[in-house]
Amino acid sequence: MKIGILGLGLIGGSLGYDLRSLGHHVLGVSRRSSTCARAIALGSVDAASVDMSLLAAADVVFICTPIALIVPQFQQLITHLPVTTVITDVGSVKAPIVEAIAPLWSNFIGGHPMAGTTDSGIEAAQRDLFVGKPYVLTPDATTPKTAMTIVEEIVRSLGANLYYCQPEQHDRAVSLISHLPVIVSAALIATCMGETDSQVLQLAQNLASSGFRDTSRVGGGNPELGVMMAQYNRQALLNSLAQYRQNLDELTNLIVQSDWADLELKLQANGKARPKFVE
Amino acid sequence: MKIGILGLGLIGGSLGYDLRSLGHHVLGVSRRSSTCARAIALGSVDAASVDMSLLAAADVVFICTPIALIVPQFQQLITHLPVTTVITDVGSVKAPIVEAIAPLWSNFIGGHPMAGTTDSGIEAAQRDLFVGKPYVLTPDATTPKTAMTIVEEIVRSLGANLYYCQPEQHDRAVSLISHLPVIVSAALIATCMGETDSQVLQLAQNLASSGFRDTSRVGGGNPELGVMMAQYNRQALLNSLAQYRQNLDELTNLIVQSDWADLELKLQANGKARPKFVE
Repeated sequence: MKIGILGLGLIGGSLGYDLRSLGHHVLGVSRRSSTCARAIALGSVDAASVDMSLLAAADVVFICTPIALIVPQFQQLITHLPVTTVITDVGSVKAPIVEAIAPLWSNFIGGHPMAGTTDSGIEAAQRDLFVGKPYVLTPDATTPKTAMTIVEEIVRSLGANLYYCQPEQHDRAVSLISHLPVIVSAALIATCMGETDSQVLQLAQNLASSGFRDTSRVGGGNPELGVMMAQYNRQALLNSLAQYRQNLDELTNLIVQSDWADLELKLQANGKARPKFVE
Repeated sequence: MKIGILGLGLIGGSLGYDLRSLGHHVLGVSRRSSTCARAIALGSVDAASVDMSLLAAADVVFICTPIALIVPQFQQLITHLPVTTVITDVGSVKAPIVEAIAPLWSNFIGGHPMAGTTDSGIEAAQRDLFVGKPYVLTPDATTPKTAMTIVEEIVRSLGANLYYCQPEQHDRAVSLISHLPVIVSAALIATCMGETDSQVLQLAQNLASSGFRDTSRVGGGNPELGVMMAQYNRQALLNSLAQYRQNLDELTNLIVQSDWADLELKLQANGKARPKFVE
């Protein structure tokens, strides 16, 4: 199959490696000619260009740009494509993208591979990035069965675990387990750095160990990525934050009331619930 | 030197291994005779007994019981000791312990080795547990210099990094970097398990990965330990929670106002601050 990749970063570049290994002919488009040359040299694509018309020959196109560019690049892209081309994207928020694209392109299916590293760019791309990782597809009632089958089979061939849901359900789920942790963790760092007694602050810095390290990790991560999540998944994140604040207040009140029995029950329930999310 | 260890669990047992390796004669006391026998068999102590009078011969006694037992066991212990015996403890909260013990025993210095594993008990004890880890001592103006020097030298010989501060400063610092993360993380798990749409909950469970794993780790840990921290460090933890809530509300308000520039500045400041706490 001829597969186009628009955006040759970590996800696009990694997709290219795997799809070529699977015997597909991979066409890449990047805004920078240096990235095109690098993707060819690394073996991530068979051919690459800064010109989107290269993708006219593709049966399927994966849009792998940063989330802010998905819809604008899609609008340019479709001026070059026959209506039969299947389009999918890899954006980490789905409702705003599906709402913008689906009415304009019937052969479209939103997607989100939950794979990544802390690095980005074509140099960070790697083989087998998607193996054993979740990959969500968000088709709707109007999605053509043939388009579905094509995207599904490609995702399965990457070794990913396929899930289906509505775009809004996807966004609520990722707001809980991915975007909320960033804000929760960011507020922890802000609280510690805001300590006004300089001796206590110094001591806190010296004593911090694995508990602080793990709980603060995602809040100290890439700021652009954090803002992007908040911006594109704003309403779902605000709903999750409202729920979070209520749970925080409940735990705080148990401590205010010295209700140790109920606090222990809450912490026990947490310990039982967590393995349902992560091993 | 003859060194007594009251409480042969993870910390007491590990101390025993290292102190014996350093050439000290180690006397252990546990409430259970089976633990005494096991500590001798494992080589963590030279002699052990359920009878505290064994410790009458010790130059220094480390109280290594669970925090709730430190003060009551101390009260029993001193009926067996000459007033020259130096006493220290390893409790993870210092102000309530120092306030209770210091007026009754002049040769006392509060201590807190920041070392631990998820396991507990004599079987979890290990050699070199304290190497490279912080070890806080909280002497006050009345602490005799000779007692200070003895405890200091033992702590240094364990390979630990020694810090001094007031008990209240210790408790504020650990409330920020150790106890607050537990509650922050617990509220995250409670929020996710409280999702009312069962499909979204199922999806969240399927999609959760490293971000959720790290941020939720300490909130899903030992419930008794979490309650103990909250109970013994209640006021410092409540102060930290009040600060946290304010920081959380500030971040939430930036998202409500779609103030992405300021949100990015806050996240950038976090990214710069975090390495001052952990590498």
